[in-house]
Amino acid sequence: MKILVVNAGSSSIKYQLLDPDDSGPLAKGTLEKIGQPGSFLTHTVRGEKHRLERDVLDHSAGIEWVLQVLADPELGVIRDVREIDAVGHRMVHGGEKFYKPTLVTPEVMDVLVECIPLAPLHNPHNIKGIEACRRILPDTPQVVVFDTAFHATIPKHAYLYALPYDLYEKHRFRRYGFHGTSHYYVSREVAKHMGREDDPDFRVITCHLGNGGSITAVKGGKSIDTSMGYTPVEGLIMGTRCGDVDPYLFIQIMEIYDLDTRQVSNLMNKFSGLLGISGVSNDMRTLEELMDTDERARLAIEMFCYRVLKYVGAYTAALGGLDALVFTGGIGTNSPLVRRIVCSNLGYLGLKLDEEANERGVGNKTLRISAPDSKVEVWAYLTNEELVIAQQAAEVVASL
Amino acid sequence: MKILVVNAGSSSIKYQLLDPDDSGPLAKGTLEKIGQPGSFLTHTVRGEKHRLERDVLDHSAGIEWVLQVLADPELGVIRDVREIDAVGHRMVHGGEKFYKPTLVTPEVMDVLVECIPLAPLHNPHNIKGIEACRRILPDTPQVVVFDTAFHATIPKHAYLYALPYDLYEKHRFRRYGFHGTSHYYVSREVAKHMGREDDPDFRVITCHLGNGGSITAVKGGKSIDTSMGYTPVEGLIMGTRCGDVDPYLFIQIMEIYDLDTRQVSNLMNKFSGLLGISGVSNDMRTLEELMDTDERARLAIEMFCYRVLKYVGAYTAALGGLDALVFTGGIGTNSPLVRRIVCSNLGYLGLKLDEEANERGVGNKTLRISAPDSKVEVWAYLTNEELVIAQQAAEVVASL
Repeated sequence: MKILVVNAGSSSIKYQLLDPDDSGPLAKGTLEKIGQPGSFLTHTVRGEKHRLERDVLDHSAGIEWVLQVLADPELGVIRDVREIDAVGHRMVHGGEKFYKPTLVTPEVMDVLVECIPLAPLHNPHNIKGIEACRRILPDTPQVVVFDTAFHATIPKHAYLYALPYDLYEKHRFRRYGFHGTSHYYVSREVAKHMGREDDPDFRVITCHLGNGGSITAVKGGKSIDTSMGYTPVEGLIMGTRCGDVDPYLFIQIMEIYDLDTRQVSNLMNKFSGLLGISGVSNDMRTLEELMDTDERARLAIEMFCYRVLKYVGAYTAALGGLDALVFTGGIGTNSPLVRRIVCSNLGYLGLKLDEEANERGVGNKTLRISAPDSKVEVWAYLTNEELVIAQQAAEVVASL
Repeated sequence: MKILVVNAGSSSIKYQLLDPDDSGPLAKGTLEKIGQPGSFLTHTVRGEKHRLERDVLDHSAGIEWVLQVLADPELGVIRDVREIDAVGHRMVHGGEKFYKPTLVTPEVMDVLVECIPLAPLHNPHNIKGIEACRRILPDTPQVVVFDTAFHATIPKHAYLYALPYDLYEKHRFRRYGFHGTSHYYVSREVAKHMGREDDPDFRVITCHLGNGGSITAVKGGKSIDTSMGYTPVEGLIMGTRCGDVDPYLFIQIMEIYDLDTRQVSNLMNKFSGLLGISGVSNDMRTLEELMDTDERARLAIEMFCYRVLKYVGAYTAALGGLDALVFTGGIGTNSPLVRRIVCSNLGYLGLKLDEEANERGVGNKTLRISAPDSKVEVWAYLTNEELVIAQQAAEVVASL
């Protein structure tokens, strides 16, 4: 079976063609700068990376090009696009209406469009990707998989905000959470490694730390709380997002600087986080390079790690204890420093890091980094959201 | 020594006359409805409560009346107001400039006025109380004690928000924390009870739960983090305040309902919290009475307790373990239910509640409510902010 996984952003399309029964992709790539001068495609196949250039006006032209490359006699892995059994689309926000992988129909498209206000920065681009594939591959099933889906099991006392209840009833203002596919994948994989896949009491905290970041408490395979909320701005300190903050601060900032809502949204989403604190970079790698000479780069790292630590503590209380702690995402799998700082305060849980293994955990490797006698297993685990999307799309197609 | 402690609110003045070497007040009371029809004073002296009525136009007239009552041959405890050695004033916000108890001078008054924007709902009324006392008792030292003071030891990585750093430099936007006098008092008292008053490694979490509420992590007698932030709206779910929330939500609410900043501030401060969720009451006692028949009253209690639990977990991680957990404030000392729900998920810390002692912890009593073999001592502890203010005012006067 061959599934094409598509993750469409504002000016990019990430894709993988893969067999859901096999973890490695047949081919994968990223098309960047859609609608801008100098658009290009980075395509990896049979271990080789190719860079192709061509002006791409919109997502539709982009998907067309990707399919062309996948069926190309030299660069491709299929002879005809009709070999693709289904397309799985990553969709950021499904609201309260969607949480299961869903076959795209005209009715579903209408509801997806209704969900745009819930994730105005992501959903419109995801939808463009779906529309392009429907046009070009009209006979191929399209399946949407939601970033919010894994968090559908969060109980009401954890997903509701302490605002007037009728705001929730009218507008569905609540915690949704994101990165669900990643939290699901790494929590399931670590449960498998520990032989506790079917244990309803297995308690794991998954830290997805990248340019965006979130932490999830998982009990018996189910998400019970997560740090991102109604939008991806809540929770951890991220590359350019502020995460948790006294909400009144924004009221005062709006008054002092006479900002409108769009401007204050930009402030919290694009100019805050690691970039806002350090003043130099939203990239943890750069900050780690600077930390010995730049006080604010060091401060940004300390604040980032302290926020992670507090969520790990909070979710350990929510879970009533902890069996495993998993780090994933670009920072999670590549920063021994961040993992060391976070774990250094968790000795009270009987957690012991294997310092040497932790240092080896760079270059996107999966490995256990806790000491053999640690009461909590700690893992640096490579996530694989595309595989989950392909598997879930395959399941939907199989049930047709 | 006799110190008058004054806590002036928008339309009320709370007062106590006490000897700082003695924990019980000589007399205490509350003047309510200042500037409104039907102002009245509830005055307690020698174990008897008296209700007096008189129209009181402003804070100055209010203080004058309070002093009259204190020197009244029948209701009073002094013969002349000149017996008062100092007045200690509770002030909510001292900004970054004030954290030690401070003798009021004309210069200090100017800076206090500058701090008004930091706590617009509280500071102006506190200042009115000081001005009234200065006018009526011009020769008596006036000392201000700040609710933010105890939190001056919070390290930078914990008090800073992940916003552009120049906003902090220009406007001192940061976590300040409140209820400092209460957190200081109960953490010090419990450390004394446990014989660890001078132990720099003693770790205690203090939960001040009232109509306003905050939680503080205290290590070696010093606050290292607290749940209220730049303003008292952050953190726990309170009577009418929302506490932690995705900040983007308010952007969207402003857009949908076309609210201005003042309206959205009212929304988060006055119509949220327990009241917003339940739709019926901001009072935990009422919600507990309704919880068996009213689903949303129960939900409000569950959310309240879950938020407390998460902070206890987060601060245990920040402290690297926990020696004692203290509940204070109206809810903290009077709700066995809240304490039981919070503690029920903390078994992983070796914490064991003494269920029978917990049930006895009502009616504003101080008692240990953990089992003898609990690894974490749990206390329901009556706070005494007035005593701390009196002691600190006495120290300032002694050093003159």
